[in-house]
Amino acid sequence: MKDDNCIFCKIANGEIPSETLYEDGDFRVILDLNPASEGHALILSKEHYRNLPELPSQTAAKVLPLAGKIGKAMMSELSAKGFNVVQNNEEAAGQTVFHFHVHIIPRYANPDEMLLWKPGKSTEEGLKAVSEKLRKVL
Amino acid sequence: MKDDNCIFCKIANGEIPSETLYEDGDFRVILDLNPASEGHALILSKEHYRNLPELPSQTAAKVLPLAGKIGKAMMSELSAKGFNVVQNNEEAAGQTVFHFHVHIIPRYANPDEMLLWKPGKSTEEGLKAVSEKLRKVL
Repeated sequence: MKDDNCIFCKIANGEIPSETLYEDGDFRVILDLNPASEGHALILSKEHYRNLPELPSQTAAKVLPLAGKIGKAMMSELSAKGFNVVQNNEEAAGQTVFHFHVHIIPRYANPDEMLLWKPGKSTEEGLKAVSEKLRKVL
Repeated sequence: MKDDNCIFCKIANGEIPSETLYEDGDFRVILDLNPASEGHALILSKEHYRNLPELPSQTAAKVLPLAGKIGKAMMSELSAKGFNVVQNNEEAAGQTVFHFHVHIIPRYANPDEMLLWKPGKSTEEGLKAVSEKLRKVL
């Protein structure tokens, strides 16, 4: 499957050049051109899937082991002190290109400089209500 | 493997009660008590691993398919408009509990209200230098 209007299809399949770190039958790993930090990488699926809900399970199974390998390389080769693995689904979650991809973001220093979210507050009733809704379909 | 001083070990193995959404032999999925948004869930490994670099590949392979299932449930049952999958490694990346876990954060509305990072700038030389370092170990 390939979408002719999708820029990540073109990059993943080599029609548009990219700084490629790694490639196999399922994925191409490239450097992000607008990095959150030096070395910010993207895992792109070679097939076109909108995002995680569309990705077949057998392909999804290969993503996190690969992300771990990339993160370890960032720590050993770039002297990163840690890394984030981030995968966004739909515009409300900050997804801007609608082709499955995963961000691997190396982190070098102060955790506060790039906080990913502000922790909120919860109530027991609120948690119970949400939990009941989700549990019945999981 | 279990670490007696680890709170996520105690939660994952049911010694400390939690709002559990799902459980299998490898993972327990709970609601975060300090949610970024309503329904913010955590996948905890039942075995104690510090984070992704320590997680065995065969366990890591099961994480993203499960995260997708949880995200889909958030969209169908909580009317979320999207969701983020986030996994942090080491203090520099915002990890606060050193037991492998993955955040699934449902998103409801304005993507700007919870931007995960500010896109940066890159140069061709900078990208090439980083790429060379990483490519050789991937």
